[in-house]
Amino acid sequence: MSWTLTADAVRDLARGAAVLGTGGGGDPHVGALLAEQAIVAHGPVEVVPLNELPDDAMVVMVAMMGAPTVMVEKLPSLEEVRAAVQAAESALPEGTITHIVCAEIGGVNSTLPVAAAATLGLPLVDADGMGRAFPELQMVLPTLSGIAASPVSFADEKGNVGVVHTADNTWAERIVRVACVEMGCTIMITTFPQRGAQARTSLVKDSVTRAVQVGRAITDSRASNQDPVASVVEVLGGRELFAGKVVDVQRATTAGFARGRARIDGEHDVLELSFQNEHLVAQAGDTVLATTPDLIMVLEHDSGEPITTEGLRYGQRVRVIAAPSDPRWHSAEALQMVGPAYFGYAVEGHRFDGSPDHPEQEDVA
Amino acid sequence: MSWTLTADAVRDLARGAAVLGTGGGGDPHVGALLAEQAIVAHGPVEVVPLNELPDDAMVVMVAMMGAPTVMVEKLPSLEEVRAAVQAAESALPEGTITHIVCAEIGGVNSTLPVAAAATLGLPLVDADGMGRAFPELQMVLPTLSGIAASPVSFADEKGNVGVVHTADNTWAERIVRVACVEMGCTIMITTFPQRGAQARTSLVKDSVTRAVQVGRAITDSRASNQDPVASVVEVLGGRELFAGKVVDVQRATTAGFARGRARIDGEHDVLELSFQNEHLVAQAGDTVLATTPDLIMVLEHDSGEPITTEGLRYGQRVRVIAAPSDPRWHSAEALQMVGPAYFGYAVEGHRFDGSPDHPEQEDVA
Repeated sequence: MSWTLTADAVRDLARGAAVLGTGGGGDPHVGALLAEQAIVAHGPVEVVPLNELPDDAMVVMVAMMGAPTVMVEKLPSLEEVRAAVQAAESALPEGTITHIVCAEIGGVNSTLPVAAAATLGLPLVDADGMGRAFPELQMVLPTLSGIAASPVSFADEKGNVGVVHTADNTWAERIVRVACVEMGCTIMITTFPQRGAQARTSLVKDSVTRAVQVGRAITDSRASNQDPVASVVEVLGGRELFAGKVVDVQRATTAGFARGRARIDGEHDVLELSFQNEHLVAQAGDTVLATTPDLIMVLEHDSGEPITTEGLRYGQRVRVIAAPSDPRWHSAEALQMVGPAYFGYAVEGHRFDGSPDHPEQEDVA
Repeated sequence: MSWTLTADAVRDLARGAAVLGTGGGGDPHVGALLAEQAIVAHGPVEVVPLNELPDDAMVVMVAMMGAPTVMVEKLPSLEEVRAAVQAAESALPEGTITHIVCAEIGGVNSTLPVAAAATLGLPLVDADGMGRAFPELQMVLPTLSGIAASPVSFADEKGNVGVVHTADNTWAERIVRVACVEMGCTIMITTFPQRGAQARTSLVKDSVTRAVQVGRAITDSRASNQDPVASVVEVLGGRELFAGKVVDVQRATTAGFARGRARIDGEHDVLELSFQNEHLVAQAGDTVLATTPDLIMVLEHDSGEPITTEGLRYGQRVRVIAAPSDPRWHSAEALQMVGPAYFGYAVEGHRFDGSPDHPEQEDVA
């Protein structure tokens, strides 16, 4: 059943999305401020369950592309959202957009679509393209379903607007990314326009609800003097990997991405986190504890406040948790797109819950 | 009166355009081959004088963007021309394109539009955007008339197609250029869509005719044992600056451009040519002989065959000639866009014909 997302719930959504953003995706509070502003101006947003989408709905992802390190300094505006959606509509032979959906349920791209939906007076689908955050445009489950990212529309704060139809989804990432970098490292985009019938099978369901639950678990645990980190682990069906102090952070913003490493000293051991916008590998000595596509999250030790990769600082006391990704991310094809090797990490593909990494190969055996 | 451009005349056009390309713009023979092929398949092209354009004509420039050094290795196809024009038409609220025009009368972009016109069954306007060749998209006289480059459409050989509406013409250059580099350093674009009424004042008239005349002057002089270089100088109202042997060429393809310098040893003196796709400064010692926006051309000593910057080789015996540009290029605003300082050359603005560089300031005085 549809439910109504109010300005109050946006705070929980933002906190939950910061957790599910696995360190990346940009600060969701930036999008939350915009969402609250849009809801005050235009009213609350209707959130539609994925299985209630009409077959002929026209769903598009609305997202911000860019380096999270830049996003926190250069705030998006609703003007750019409108410009990008308008450009998408003019490029869609299928006509009017009926629903907005999140590309990722992590980071700013979980809350910005709320702002877009409120501003445009459109419902938001309770779903997203990945069940987490990933750094590149093509890295959504619809790519694996053969759905085109094109037309991709984009807009910046200077009034530049564009639409591309690309040979494949990786070309969409390549062309729009260089345009994004040239336009100042953040732009608003719309992508993966699809019919309701396609969306129902290509997307991850209940993502918005899940993010609100995660955020609320943190808020409620704090209010009742319980351990927020433990409550997040429970909601996500995850596990705590490590606790310690941040002792070193190296980061660089290159080619539109925030890349780097963090070292966390524990009681007996040292954890090394590698990130490219998101945390992608957690390793203690030679032991790989978790890797992309599973979710690796860094939370402040006591408050459970999620810490983004650009928020990591020397001296922070943190706990690192992991949770299983949508199982579709563990197919061989998916791992080629988002596995550790794609990002240049020489670690074995590793499935957090202990089951083998290529389940569909087992089906064949 | 309209005239018909046949496959035979395309050869003269190509040779003339190689002269007017002032060393850049890509090898026009690449476009000529495509134009001949298109004329054989679809019939000759009607060339319409600028002053006969109907007010409500919809004229667009069709051009290749990229590094000339790459263009000679990666040939364009008529498929990309069609894709770019189709994308432009879908983005133009004004509707159907009625005429094709050259962005520049130098290089490949003088002959490619012939191929486009033949393929699309549209007339070509006897005009161009600059009366020569320049390396960047915004560097056309319509920019000075306040005409928008947008929508700019682009297409590559891989099937990638895009359209941008930019904040200004410089942003069009910036965004489409980075996309071009990412797409492999050559793409087909359409730009500066404008009504006939605008085109009649914003463009340089009779450019196609002039390029054919220059090409024919070379051919005829050779046939009658006259000096081809002298005949080109006469047609263009120019002057021979220097004769000598190429003794050094330095070039690099950076950020999508072919940049470099050439040294030519004469009987008593040394000429240094600086280029960025086109020849932009000709200097003998401390004496500047000619600079952009005036035309600097390098011709083979005896045959008068134009030599592009990427064709310059050690040991070539050449003659360097210059001719005045369209006078509109010498306004203060125009010189900011295409004067030596814009390209990073620390030489004084210099008007080839000896008259002062800012004629409109004289009018005021």
